[in-house]
Amino acid sequence: MFEARLVQSAILKKVLDAIKDLLTEATFECSDSGIQVQAMDNAHVSLVSLNLRSDGFDKYRCDRNLSMGMSIATMSKILRCAGTEDTVTLRAWDNPEIIAFIFESPNKEKLAEYEMKLINMDQEHLGIPETNYSCVVKMPSQEFARICRDLSQFGESITFACSKEGIKFTASGDHGTANVKLAQTAEADKEEEAVIVNMQEPVKLTFSCRYLNCFIKASPLCAQVQLSMSSDVPLVCEYKIGEIGHIRYYLAPKIDDDDDN
Amino acid sequence: MFEARLVQSAILKKVLDAIKDLLTEATFECSDSGIQVQAMDNAHVSLVSLNLRSDGFDKYRCDRNLSMGMSIATMSKILRCAGTEDTVTLRAWDNPEIIAFIFESPNKEKLAEYEMKLINMDQEHLGIPETNYSCVVKMPSQEFARICRDLSQFGESITFACSKEGIKFTASGDHGTANVKLAQTAEADKEEEAVIVNMQEPVKLTFSCRYLNCFIKASPLCAQVQLSMSSDVPLVCEYKIGEIGHIRYYLAPKIDDDDDN
Amino acid sequence: MFEARLVQSAILKKVLDAIKDLLTEATFECSDSGIQVQAMDNAHVSLVSLNLRSDGFDKYRCDRNLSMGMSIATMSKILRCAGTEDTVTLRAWDNPEIIAFIFESPNKEKLAEYEMKLINMDQEHLGIPETNYSCVVKMPSQEFARICRDLSQFGESITFACSKEGIKFTASGDHGTANVKLAQTAEADKEEEAVIVNMQEPVKLTFSCRYLNCFIKASPLCAQVQLSMSSDVPLVCEYKIGEIGHIRYYLAPKIDDDDDN
Repeated sequence: MFEARLVQSAILKKVLDAIKDLLTEATFECSDSGIQVQAMDNAHVSLVSLNLRSDGFDKYRCDRNLSMGMSIATMSKILRCAGTEDTVTLRAWDNPEIIAFIFESPNKEKLAEYEMKLINMDQEHLGIPETNYSCVVKMPSQEFARICRDLSQFGESITFACSKEGIKFTASGDHGTANVKLAQTAEADKEEEAVIVNMQEPVKLTFSCRYLNCFIKASPLCAQVQLSMSSDVPLVCEYKIGEIGHIRYYLAPKIDDDDDN
Repeated sequence: MFEARLVQSAILKKVLDAIKDLLTEATFECSDSGIQVQAMDNAHVSLVSLNLRSDGFDKYRCDRNLSMGMSIATMSKILRCAGTEDTVTLRAWDNPEIIAFIFESPNKEKLAEYEMKLINMDQEHLGIPETNYSCVVKMPSQEFARICRDLSQFGESITFACSKEGIKFTASGDHGTANVKLAQTAEADKEEEAVIVNMQEPVKLTFSCRYLNCFIKASPLCAQVQLSMSSDVPLVCEYKIGEIGHIRYYLAPKIDDDDDN
Repeated sequence: MFEARLVQSAILKKVLDAIKDLLTEATFECSDSGIQVQAMDNAHVSLVSLNLRSDGFDKYRCDRNLSMGMSIATMSKILRCAGTEDTVTLRAWDNPEIIAFIFESPNKEKLAEYEMKLINMDQEHLGIPETNYSCVVKMPSQEFARICRDLSQFGESITFACSKEGIKFTASGDHGTANVKLAQTAEADKEEEAVIVNMQEPVKLTFSCRYLNCFIKASPLCAQVQLSMSSDVPLVCEYKIGEIGHIRYYLAPKIDDDDDN
């Protein structure tokens, strides 16, 4: 039997919002240590890696390892039916064909149960090599989201240039050029508002707006986003999920033939 | 002469919102006792019955009975022009071709008058037999609206199963099954949040989501909705309209060939 | 060199919102005295005249007169990228092909620079004769916006009838007739809520809803709008822009063959 319970169903809602634009289906690997999803987006360009640790749940039981293929759209529909105060429980039997989502209201007077059919999916285990990154930037996730959205208006891709002083984002297109510079925070009143640059050597990488604008859907999960970058290696865009885990997006940089300055 | 005045024009706005998805035109029967509308929806499946008592108006005068055919869309447009604080007066002469809606601002400095042409309509008087219902359920109208919207995502109809313990709503479709149970409230802090089941014998009836989702547009009129059900008889879904009247929706249950458990 | 700086970038955002439905491109005439735009709308029916005085800017420098053709849509996109607290600076060199918009956050840690290509445009200098108007009405801009929007539902044009008592707006169409009367304010608690009519002789003029509904986009700029009217002369609809200038819309009245009462 598999059973995982979260008092705050809102977290799971936000997780679904963070992946539903990238994935239509995904395999949820459940084991004693928690729940893991690792999948390429529908166009096989970016990679999503979601990790929810068993100890982060209010109740967690997984008698044997399960790989459950789920429709992300249906799961998202179901989670929209949870009240903001509801507790959510995921429940499946061994060799399951169905997973149940159970929502309980705080006063116990409303009990909603949604049963979703599972999908048979091919397994693709992706090894993600550990890397030392040239630059690791932490910044407010809302600020990052704002910059991605703003600059998307001016071009199809955004160049991230990271140096000791801070990080610069540039886009250009038919209407002109846009660039936004964030200085490293001298002294932040609030940790979550800080811009912190951890640099071994400067990097300058260009990424597709289309994918960045999917990643920023995770902003409600965490006040800060962490961007890890090295030349010729995929960007890692990471959001913590409370005390329970994290979601990471991987995106390879674009190769510009004429631009290596 | 016919004249009816309401200090709170917002009530009339909400009434129009509650019927405009179901009716394009309707006959407003005005008499000494008040205003009544009784009409089948455009597809002739459900029945709307609206009652506004003359003593609920701040001023009411109806010298002779009038049957006025009105365009619900135009009336709705006109009412959207009323300010939230405005007083509304409906005025028509005997044998009218026009009805006037007059909005006055609280400081009397703005006076808006909208004249709407009346429509010739066939009269259809529908007798609604008085019935003793097997189950009468009162519940928060927002909760009922939420359940109808949520379950509509999973099927085209919702089964209402009512027993002593409470009421259960079920829908199922390609993606799986959804069901929501509401327990009878043990002790409600606030009357308007209570779920109260008055049961002679249990019922289990299935209704089309499409119509339920029209009925719930009346939710802003009243904190509670009352559902009256008996086997093989139309559901009555009733919302009180302040101290002035009520709106009732009637909808026949679906007949399921293979489902009598 | 041309440089103009506004601590409140929000003002410029609102100015763009006030013209972007009427103009796709416009020439910004910059001189020592300030910035001026004068342009017919795309359909060459109404005229927009925008005036921003140099002394209204927090910093202003214009070494030589410049006529810069700008895409209003692109400028509007750029201004949407400004944070609500940001300072905005416009900067161009002599004989410019580009204008830069520079946004600085209050803490100076975010610096965004958008460079927009200028457009070659034909110059059309329009002389607007000074006129003494028969009626000048001041009223809350929100109220005027509301009336234009409400009455547009009932007809394609609105008749403004101004007398000593106040101003009356009328529209009529297939569904009936709508009219709204505003009385001159006897004693206004707040100046910005007052309706003030300054009348030499009564006027009755009819204007196209389509243009009025563009003009009211300027409402966020100022709590009051001023309407100046004379028979057979264009309406002037004026909004002050803080302490910095104003925007005026000119619109010729419709000629009704059968209506001279």
